[in-house]
Amino acid sequence: METKLQELKTLLMEANDLEMAGALLNWDQSTYMPSGGAEARGRQLGTLAKLAHEKATDPAIGRLLDALRPFEESLPFDSDDASLIRVTRRQYERATKVPAAFMARINTHMAESYVAWTLARPANDFKKVQSSLETTLDLSRELANYFPGYAHIADPLIDFADYGMSAVSVRAVFTELRDQLVPIVQAITSQAPADDACLHQRYPEDKQLAFGLEVIKRFGFDFERGRQDKTHHPFMTKFSLGDVRITTRVKENDLGEAIFSTMHESGHAMYELGINRDYEGSPLGGGTSSGVHESQSRTWENLVGRSLGFWQFFYPRLQDYFPEQLKSVSLDTFYRAINKVQRSLIRTDSDEVTYNLHPIIRFDLELQLLEGSLAVRDLPEAWRARYTSDIGITPPDDKDGVLQDVHWFGGLIGGAFQGYTLGNILSAQFFAEALKAHPEIPAQIASGEFGVLHNWLKTSIYQYGSKYTASELIQRVTGGPLSIAPYINYLKTKYQALYAGV
Amino acid sequence: METKLQELKTLLMEANDLEMAGALLNWDQSTYMPSGGAEARGRQLGTLAKLAHEKATDPAIGRLLDALRPFEESLPFDSDDASLIRVTRRQYERATKVPAAFMARINTHMAESYVAWTLARPANDFKKVQSSLETTLDLSRELANYFPGYAHIADPLIDFADYGMSAVSVRAVFTELRDQLVPIVQAITSQAPADDACLHQRYPEDKQLAFGLEVIKRFGFDFERGRQDKTHHPFMTKFSLGDVRITTRVKENDLGEAIFSTMHESGHAMYELGINRDYEGSPLGGGTSSGVHESQSRTWENLVGRSLGFWQFFYPRLQDYFPEQLKSVSLDTFYRAINKVQRSLIRTDSDEVTYNLHPIIRFDLELQLLEGSLAVRDLPEAWRARYTSDIGITPPDDKDGVLQDVHWFGGLIGGAFQGYTLGNILSAQFFAEALKAHPEIPAQIASGEFGVLHNWLKTSIYQYGSKYTASELIQRVTGGPLSIAPYINYLKTKYQALYAGV
Repeated sequence: METKLQELKTLLMEANDLEMAGALLNWDQSTYMPSGGAEARGRQLGTLAKLAHEKATDPAIGRLLDALRPFEESLPFDSDDASLIRVTRRQYERATKVPAAFMARINTHMAESYVAWTLARPANDFKKVQSSLETTLDLSRELANYFPGYAHIADPLIDFADYGMSAVSVRAVFTELRDQLVPIVQAITSQAPADDACLHQRYPEDKQLAFGLEVIKRFGFDFERGRQDKTHHPFMTKFSLGDVRITTRVKENDLGEAIFSTMHESGHAMYELGINRDYEGSPLGGGTSSGVHESQSRTWENLVGRSLGFWQFFYPRLQDYFPEQLKSVSLDTFYRAINKVQRSLIRTDSDEVTYNLHPIIRFDLELQLLEGSLAVRDLPEAWRARYTSDIGITPPDDKDGVLQDVHWFGGLIGGAFQGYTLGNILSAQFFAEALKAHPEIPAQIASGEFGVLHNWLKTSIYQYGSKYTASELIQRVTGGPLSIAPYINYLKTKYQALYAGV
Repeated sequence: METKLQELKTLLMEANDLEMAGALLNWDQSTYMPSGGAEARGRQLGTLAKLAHEKATDPAIGRLLDALRPFEESLPFDSDDASLIRVTRRQYERATKVPAAFMARINTHMAESYVAWTLARPANDFKKVQSSLETTLDLSRELANYFPGYAHIADPLIDFADYGMSAVSVRAVFTELRDQLVPIVQAITSQAPADDACLHQRYPEDKQLAFGLEVIKRFGFDFERGRQDKTHHPFMTKFSLGDVRITTRVKENDLGEAIFSTMHESGHAMYELGINRDYEGSPLGGGTSSGVHESQSRTWENLVGRSLGFWQFFYPRLQDYFPEQLKSVSLDTFYRAINKVQRSLIRTDSDEVTYNLHPIIRFDLELQLLEGSLAVRDLPEAWRARYTSDIGITPPDDKDGVLQDVHWFGGLIGGAFQGYTLGNILSAQFFAEALKAHPEIPAQIASGEFGVLHNWLKTSIYQYGSKYTASELIQRVTGGPLSIAPYINYLKTKYQALYAGV
């Protein structure tokens, strides 16, 4: 059995190596590639994706999984070997249900659709992507239909990103969340908004970058196993458990942009860097779900990085970086500025309180598109209607409306947005557990120390990689299922101190 | 036949895409990869090399080549399609003679041997690599023996890099060259050496880099299809015909280092960038031999970059970059400094006149090792003896002796060094043809214009990629075979002006 397990690991490693090579090609495309490289790079990424899919669906893997079943059943559920076999089986069964020819079609379409979007958004012209998006919807439905037996057509797509969740279960959580959020939003936005003018002075790029690096170094981001580069859109990517990289972007007239995106991406990265190194190159060696991943970026960006304690330590340092801009700005003014709550058009720029209204709108629209109750041509209007009703402002154009997020235009409708809100919910649920175990964490944060929190996250969450599903992990860490109570409690406690009537 | 040709191109493109992905992983390893990524990166490079070899030796390629033979024979030799089939056949026949298992062994050994060398050289300890180098020699002989029928065991290895050349033909050229070089070296080194103290002041890195970029921009290096980064050892690499990159290193106490390596690597890069774009992803889409490639780097580094005319234009600009260091240094002093001739230990630091003595020593030692007339354990002593007799100085240690070049320690003995000297010879032979066609080139260079030369090189050499072998190309461009006369003539003319009695 040891030999068969080793054979399995070797096959999986090869598939992984191709995937990681593709990740590097993508990273390079966003960071350093000269424009002349674009055409061949697209083709090369396609080749690597195709070969990685071939390797991941090699029938030899299926035979080994069958042969290893008795071995798996002889081991405890928690054992690494049993977990590897279990998770590989789940991924293999999923991957082999989709024909390679379909994968090639959808990959080609994704690349074309993305290019169309990069032209349509600046031109504020939804028509330029409408027919491409119609194809995307057809392909997304086709993909879902390779997984018959679903209750809702979105279920397989949700399941890819957040295994174990479904349209029904996500909708239940979101309905409850929205019911609780709306009164908080109402209470806050009926008052005068915080003044965030202090963030919109001129902040030179090099100093912003240096400050961000200082922060994440203190978080415990390991620069021997990672680095940061600049890109148009920030992201985290991984080439191995020894090489996890983040990117950021800087706006010289918006101090929040680089700092919070750096903390956000470092959270994603520290999750990957905390995974048991024995899982290198195997299906266990990655974060377990889109929701859990987002919970870790949000922990560091929001629960830590937008907390008063964090800035009690770091604000004097930030003032040292930018004495001219900040010497006469009090900590209180700064803290209110970075936690300004307002109804806004753009998801990625929105504050903690209103944020979740944005993914919830997208999630609902995705479901309607997939069900067929909403046509692509009616999507811009549906978007405007939902922003008007849910957020209270009407997008003046499609550029900052339906065209704002890349996700649908990256080539898939379904499963892309629920993770953001699940992540916010989970960040608070996990953080509450960390505080129960280590009540000294807030005091540590206020003295610029993050070791207790980081270690708790490594021990409780990071190390397991994909060994446990999100729901298994939540159960292990919190003793119960996903719950919005800690999140609502977090928001209320924090924002009561800032706004009356929350 | 069109369908079969298309099938062939598709298969070749996939192999190429894997190879190019490997090139990017290598580039990243030398430029930006954090140290923690090294272990997995080595494994990933191995996987890509293995899969690329599998693709390049796919029996389907052999079947298509057979089926396409009548089509090939119906086409003129010069046609792109005939050339693609012809060159692919040559490469395919070569690749399929080597078993995949052997490739895996030698790739693994190369990686280990390289690591051993990186430790042995700073420690000045040949013993640390001796047994690894013995394995390298065994593997190199084993590799050669997959190509039976050779006259000399080094022939197949020379042929990989410089198709059409052999131990006998290279040795004949080198003997003639050495006979002509030695009196020139004698004449010059019996005189007081030039004073190059002006190059060894402190030159800040950023300005050195900026100057180098200005130079190669004027050469015509296309930054939309390339870029420069810093590495420990300078190199050129290619990810497609739209993305060709160079690297450099800067020594703040040696002005020559970055400038000349930048020009050198830009020459390699402009060759690749000048290849017919229709050859993208095919065996025609790369430089044709190691000698021809080196001739292009040397053209720009030496024939252009170390010429008086070049500095008549650029020296005042260089003085603008470094007024403090160079304002009181005359052009004549500077020109003599960058063309200082001296017997020296290190190949890569040596001047144009003595340079070729270094590769010739290595070439001879390689042949002796492969023949079995020299044992690896006796190599350091043989190295010292040859440096004493040929160059006139005895290396005081192995660090700057036998351990100085990575080539043998990168895992192969044979074929690695003749290209450097063939390149020098060819650079002058091609340049003489360019001057015949365009006598205005020197005047252009002296006014900072390089278009006529660059275009002549594109038209005469670059565009063809690997369509013609080196000897076919030399015949086409010069009307005759490889000849050392133009090179000796170049050296004599140039150095007569600097030293008496040349």
